[in-house]
Amino acid sequence: MTDAVFKFNREAFKKLLTQRFFFCPSFELYGGIAGLYDLGPPGTAIKANILALWRQHFIITENMLEIDATSVTPEPVLVSSGHVARFTDLMVKDTVTGACFRADHLLEENLERLIAAEKDEKKLFELKDAKARADTFTDAEMNEKLTLYKVVAPDTNNPLSFPKPFNLMFKTSIGPTGDVPGYLRPETAQGIFVNFKRLLEFNGGKLPFASAQIGQAYRNEIAPRSGLLRVREFTLAEVEHFVNPDDKAHPKFESIANITINAFPRDDQLSKEKQSIRITVGDAVKQGMINNETLGYFIARTHLFLVACGIKEDKLMFRQHLSDEMAHYAADCWDAEILNSYGWTECVGIADRSAYDLTAHSGATKIPFTAFVDFKDGTRSVEVATPKLEKGKMGKLLGKKGPILIKYLEDLDADVAAKLESDLSQHESVTVTVGTDDFEVKREFISGWTKKKKNVTGAHITPGVIEPSFGIGRILYSVLEHAYYVRESDEQRGVLSLPAAISPVKVVILPLQSKQGPFVSKYTENLAINGISFRVDDSGAGIGKRYSRSDEIGIPFGVTVDFQSMEDGTVTLRERDSTNQVRLKAEELVPTLQQLINHRIHWKDVEAKFPKVEAQA
Amino acid sequence: MTDAVFKFNREAFKKLLTQRFFFCPSFELYGGIAGLYDLGPPGTAIKANILALWRQHFIITENMLEIDATSVTPEPVLVSSGHVARFTDLMVKDTVTGACFRADHLLEENLERLIAAEKDEKKLFELKDAKARADTFTDAEMNEKLTLYKVVAPDTNNPLSFPKPFNLMFKTSIGPTGDVPGYLRPETAQGIFVNFKRLLEFNGGKLPFASAQIGQAYRNEIAPRSGLLRVREFTLAEVEHFVNPDDKAHPKFESIANITINAFPRDDQLSKEKQSIRITVGDAVKQGMINNETLGYFIARTHLFLVACGIKEDKLMFRQHLSDEMAHYAADCWDAEILNSYGWTECVGIADRSAYDLTAHSGATKIPFTAFVDFKDGTRSVEVATPKLEKGKMGKLLGKKGPILIKYLEDLDADVAAKLESDLSQHESVTVTVGTDDFEVKREFISGWTKKKKNVTGAHITPGVIEPSFGIGRILYSVLEHAYYVRESDEQRGVLSLPAAISPVKVVILPLQSKQGPFVSKYTENLAINGISFRVDDSGAGIGKRYSRSDEIGIPFGVTVDFQSMEDGTVTLRERDSTNQVRLKAEELVPTLQQLINHRIHWKDVEAKFPKVEAQA
Repeated sequence: MTDAVFKFNREAFKKLLTQRFFFCPSFELYGGIAGLYDLGPPGTAIKANILALWRQHFIITENMLEIDATSVTPEPVLVSSGHVARFTDLMVKDTVTGACFRADHLLEENLERLIAAEKDEKKLFELKDAKARADTFTDAEMNEKLTLYKVVAPDTNNPLSFPKPFNLMFKTSIGPTGDVPGYLRPETAQGIFVNFKRLLEFNGGKLPFASAQIGQAYRNEIAPRSGLLRVREFTLAEVEHFVNPDDKAHPKFESIANITINAFPRDDQLSKEKQSIRITVGDAVKQGMINNETLGYFIARTHLFLVACGIKEDKLMFRQHLSDEMAHYAADCWDAEILNSYGWTECVGIADRSAYDLTAHSGATKIPFTAFVDFKDGTRSVEVATPKLEKGKMGKLLGKKGPILIKYLEDLDADVAAKLESDLSQHESVTVTVGTDDFEVKREFISGWTKKKKNVTGAHITPGVIEPSFGIGRILYSVLEHAYYVRESDEQRGVLSLPAAISPVKVVILPLQSKQGPFVSKYTENLAINGISFRVDDSGAGIGKRYSRSDEIGIPFGVTVDFQSMEDGTVTLRERDSTNQVRLKAEELVPTLQQLINHRIHWKDVEAKFPKVEAQA
Repeated sequence: MTDAVFKFNREAFKKLLTQRFFFCPSFELYGGIAGLYDLGPPGTAIKANILALWRQHFIITENMLEIDATSVTPEPVLVSSGHVARFTDLMVKDTVTGACFRADHLLEENLERLIAAEKDEKKLFELKDAKARADTFTDAEMNEKLTLYKVVAPDTNNPLSFPKPFNLMFKTSIGPTGDVPGYLRPETAQGIFVNFKRLLEFNGGKLPFASAQIGQAYRNEIAPRSGLLRVREFTLAEVEHFVNPDDKAHPKFESIANITINAFPRDDQLSKEKQSIRITVGDAVKQGMINNETLGYFIARTHLFLVACGIKEDKLMFRQHLSDEMAHYAADCWDAEILNSYGWTECVGIADRSAYDLTAHSGATKIPFTAFVDFKDGTRSVEVATPKLEKGKMGKLLGKKGPILIKYLEDLDADVAAKLESDLSQHESVTVTVGTDDFEVKREFISGWTKKKKNVTGAHITPGVIEPSFGIGRILYSVLEHAYYVRESDEQRGVLSLPAAISPVKVVILPLQSKQGPFVSKYTENLAINGISFRVDDSGAGIGKRYSRSDEIGIPFGVTVDFQSMEDGTVTLRERDSTNQVRLKAEELVPTLQQLINHRIHWKDVEAKFPKVEAQA
């Protein structure tokens, strides 16, 4: 499957998308800006439908806590997350023209040419290895490879500069003083992590729970290309599922264990011959191929979501990250890759990020990002260090707030107590936060520590995070490619065979006579009230041409208002892919369409119920 | 009405919103950033519901062309629109501490104090006049007023600096070279204007049509305050309705002519005694109070939308802009102002911007932003200048592309021909664009001009724009205030009486026994499949407390799973505001809830249909 060739007339497809304004380069009349695209009406409607389905499939079904955080982010947050230091690509410049390039892309392209020409087995292995690791090189390693393989600037053949890391975040300044640096978020995830404590509280303090966010993210790519697949501003839909790291079972795992996916595990990728395999998620978890049930659950749910969007199952696989491809803290990571005419494209990443993110923010803010979880084996008896308090001194120094700190110190958890004892042996005082108050705990407050046995039911732990992250633009583009076909009978025009729930417009109304305005208004009002999006094509073009236009933007159903409509109040209803038509009473239109759009009934049910209309010339 | 006092316990309200995570300051654990807020789960869900209703009410019902343009915008676009030069507020600094303030806000606050203390009628008028015009002063005028009224820095009483315009756009740099300046869009409208030609083509070249966009906008406020009402990142939902400037009638005007609004016209605002009046939109247009039918249509539709969101009619008015408050190009402008505890707050602006925006972009790009409209009075005979072409010379110079230009020049519209003739009398050559090709039309191509009478059916005009622009965050906040009340029986806890369609969660499931898990799962699965958002509260708290918690976040319906449920498969259904309950079969739950949520039936219909449950202690 990984070697599958995607047969596809991309030129005709792109022409259709451009002519019917699915998308266009942003600010094109001003010369455009690479990597920025605007979605036109059909593109916007499809995107809105994909997001509505995502909300239904993930947020509502799984009872996730959706949040809406800002894009503008102050620098310290992105220092903690590692983005300020490490969210970079290596850039090289044409030393004469100053044009900028991504070093790894230039190297890869050059290596591809060399690979194609190379006969020697040993050298071939060396070239392929360099290509596979192109995006992992340090600046010095990259420079060595670029020199070794004599890579020069494209078009000009000028020498290249020494590679330099370029940070991909858009930088800005917050407020009027100019001394508060900020960035546009490169992902939406951080907005969830920094709100972890409020989210946990909203969930009654209980693990596991998931939070989700849909929003814009920004990456100032060095040299964007590949149309909608690599852009500087894009929509992400991300889930952060917080779990007890010692218990990654999922309560609903059984409900998806039988789902079969195309999986391409890590070890198989190292072999030249192996391709992805068909396996149930249940078996993949049982065999240890997928690290845990929760990860498996999200892989299966992602599979179901993408197929519901119109992605073809045979062009979808889940590829496991190689060990050196994953972040050092990740426990396991799988990408949903979709085959389109650009090749296998990463559209969803599903990573077990362990406790990395919460630990990072906790370290920076000195605030514990923890949850209390019960021990699996019930109550445990543990030895707790209990401080002997100098309550008199504390009362004098702290006044009214003394009792708050005293209560806190008398009731410490074992791990917190141990840490405090150790900290106070090294420092004169330690700051602790109780509720919203900060307290200075001075060494003199505590005259000694006694060890007591105490029955405890659980412990404060830093949750692990499982993160499914969806690139909506890439999914949208792939859905369009998978939906595209050309009828044998009409090679001039394409058809987009989109699922009805995803289609930008659900029904086109085609009056055959120009005087049918009042009839048409009555129908469209009723459609609008019921939230069914429609277009009216009363352009006077032939009915065939009007159907073709509607097929091009993937409208699944067409209604003609004809002579008979004026007499008996019936209309004809046509389905896009079969091009078959039935005749029904106008008042049956809305309920029939609603069921078709929600995929509660199939077109064949409609054909069985209503009389068929014979095709006209 | 304009003097209405908003009685409201804002502290208790804010406590509820914070505790239940409707929103919070962004990055609060990092110390926060003024003017940035994150929405938590209930806030996010309500916002999503408001936007879904907006899409239904405007985009689907009016068949608008929705687009999705980028936030990152290159500088030339915002130079054309005027934002680079003029999107500023006057800023003053504390000359000692360097703290920054909005000059107009400081002046207004100071004037308010002076007004309260002033007895002299003449001086009072002077103070009030200065306050009303505070945001229109130039830097010199502002300096004069600040000096005159002895305004100093708040808190420190230090002297203030000379006022300086501060541009409110967040600036960034696009791409790796650092020489492409860009900004985060301060409004979404420009993304529609620059796509006008594609949108017009998508609409078959016909006027009128409307395009809409929902998205983030960014304003780097000098000193944001007032919580969600003045923020640095916010969501706008904007419509740009393009019309023939000579024909602003609206085909559906009759359908809303009887809607009564609270209108506060310009002239009445100059008088101290007058307040807003109740008037139908039909009368307001007839009397010339509202400039035209299309503007009136959107005012009425906006009124209906806001009321459907839960805004109380008696706290909503449409205030017309004063002449010097409006942009110089605007024909008329009305703000939907909502009364909340901060006072009357502009939440929607509905402006007739005439042809300003399209003309600006056309001027900068040298591309006509025009549409062809038929003359109202049918065909007209006009004199058209026709060039005598030197086809030989043209063919030699242009080669294969010659015929394209020849055809273009032989078929000029009257206005284009007149302009070309005039341009060529002044310049040796003029550049014209035909399709995607640019041509240099040299003077030598044309040996003379003949005037011919020609029948023409219409002309190319630059459309006017009517722009309803919705501040979603402000609407959201006002909806929450209007929904808030406290029951006499339970003064500790608030209730949010949100319309069901807007409520963050539609139903809470309350199992009375801990062992009812399987029952509950069955119900929730069915709710999820049908897209009905739910929460389960199996916390073990008393039923009253659990109802209160659900009332606090505005959940309209509650289902208890009780002893009888296990026996006969019925559940009880409770409505939030009446607190009445009925008992029904579990399978009737989803259809009943669906109709209630869509406001197809009222709670009283449910009470009439199903047996009532008597309240328990």
